[in-house]
Amino acid sequence: MSTIGDLGEFGLIGRLTRRLRPGRAVRLGPGDDAAVIAAPDGRVVATTDLLVEGRHFRRDWSGPYDIGRKAAAQNLADVVAMGARPTALLVGFAAPLSTPAAWAERLYDGLDDECRAAGASVAGGDLVGAPEVTLAVTALGDLGGEPPITRSGARPGDVVAVRGRLGYSAAGMRLLAEGRDGPAELIEAHRRPQPPYAAGEEARALGATALLDVSDGLLQDLGHIAAASGVRIEVDSRAVPVPAILGADGPRHVLTGGEDHAFAGTFPADTVLPPSWSPVGVVAEGAGVLLDGREPEVAGWDHFRA
Amino acid sequence: MSTIGDLGEFGLIGRLTRRLRPGRAVRLGPGDDAAVIAAPDGRVVATTDLLVEGRHFRRDWSGPYDIGRKAAAQNLADVVAMGARPTALLVGFAAPLSTPAAWAERLYDGLDDECRAAGASVAGGDLVGAPEVTLAVTALGDLGGEPPITRSGARPGDVVAVRGRLGYSAAGMRLLAEGRDGPAELIEAHRRPQPPYAAGEEARALGATALLDVSDGLLQDLGHIAAASGVRIEVDSRAVPVPAILGADGPRHVLTGGEDHAFAGTFPADTVLPPSWSPVGVVAEGAGVLLDGREPEVAGWDHFRA
Repeated sequence: MSTIGDLGEFGLIGRLTRRLRPGRAVRLGPGDDAAVIAAPDGRVVATTDLLVEGRHFRRDWSGPYDIGRKAAAQNLADVVAMGARPTALLVGFAAPLSTPAAWAERLYDGLDDECRAAGASVAGGDLVGAPEVTLAVTALGDLGGEPPITRSGARPGDVVAVRGRLGYSAAGMRLLAEGRDGPAELIEAHRRPQPPYAAGEEARALGATALLDVSDGLLQDLGHIAAASGVRIEVDSRAVPVPAILGADGPRHVLTGGEDHAFAGTFPADTVLPPSWSPVGVVAEGAGVLLDGREPEVAGWDHFRA
Repeated sequence: MSTIGDLGEFGLIGRLTRRLRPGRAVRLGPGDDAAVIAAPDGRVVATTDLLVEGRHFRRDWSGPYDIGRKAAAQNLADVVAMGARPTALLVGFAAPLSTPAAWAERLYDGLDDECRAAGASVAGGDLVGAPEVTLAVTALGDLGGEPPITRSGARPGDVVAVRGRLGYSAAGMRLLAEGRDGPAELIEAHRRPQPPYAAGEEARALGATALLDVSDGLLQDLGHIAAASGVRIEVDSRAVPVPAILGADGPRHVLTGGEDHAFAGTFPADTVLPPSWSPVGVVAEGAGVLLDGREPEVAGWDHFRA
């Protein structure tokens, strides 16, 4: 079984790029100093995340394919949360030279498949040897002539609504930490989030005034909208869906668990929301986030403190 | 002295983004799910590099300001090597929570200053805690309506020329490894490369058929042009400038040392090159790189084997 050290940098680049399926937006793919990606809007949406082994994923909890899908998903969701269409991913991959080449190939299969699910593709990247596996993922997207849906447009009177699963990933991580192997649906949700990528276009069509993807916990992320928009967000805990599968800690997982990459947005008060969007609160004058009228005790995830 | 762990993720984001000077291309800067960058050409040039402590830089050899400048420079040079104008940088930064906040601030000062030197700015990023300092830098650029200058356009009969310092960084790294503190010019060159960013526009004006930045060693990087273009590149060692300051190993440093981010290009045979470009060889039918008619013994740097 050959390792990535056996193949060397350029051998591995060849192996991996052969597995990728370039999408329509890729004008020039891997192999040059840089890629060239279509940006028909005249602007490009761009976001980057750094995923470090032991902190953002564990190789004993997740296989390479799922790590790839998750790394891609969290960046593609950020593009969608701007109301944009994902076009391409750039991937920096650091790993020990002893890593099996097959592990790296499955990682890139996961990246490639998740890109396809969102209408994008892997267009380039960088490979380096390092003591730990690290992934640096940059996602690009196109706004199609529309303004970005930022975090700063929420207005008092707006309704707050969410689209997608909440709490599943946090519940699944808890199970893994406890050494349990079920319910499989929760563990799978932690290994491979399924952001509802259509949410960006839906939110735009519904007239969303603000939008983000829930990566650090619903209450904390709504706090970002509150801060950026200069408003208060009032969440009604009884309105937030808590599926029975989440168990006794379900309410907590739903309110503070990140990594499901659901979408949360604010909409004008008279918006008729389709069933896929659950109203969970309202926007008011003021600052911060209130849960049932009070300041919540725990909001979510800090990448530096946790 | 506060650490980045004391500040927390959002405290540090605030501290760092206040130091950045957004450029004209930044339509929406740090603070949302993603940045929005001007891409007036309708395409965007994009490249990413992952820099790992101990492998790409050493905190005992380089201060944070120089590490920032170097990390930015190597990505900005990749954009310029496509014949594009750099517009923006996204920076993923991982570091131990014990890292002084002032260290991170100087790092971002370096990133910001190097961006300014190339006409770009830092538009967004990601911060995470990790055992080692890791930087993931993505650079974006605009082609201004022109085709990219790739590695695949070299034709037999073309002249090969270089622009910028070669061998300085490798010589400086050797000095640092030997515990020496001079010549300062070489050590500074290792800590902070100075890519001649004007080279991209110059090369385009001169009708360059291929272009890249020399990041892994002149002979090795010319090999990439040879492979992509389906040609042989013949280098004349007597034509490659070897400044006396490089010492006894100068010829080797110049031919195989990376990280100076000089630019190497191929040009039609009748091109009148300005003095800033040094002709070092010719393009011929065939494959690979020849040095004085023979295959070179050592070509350059493999990020996986070194």
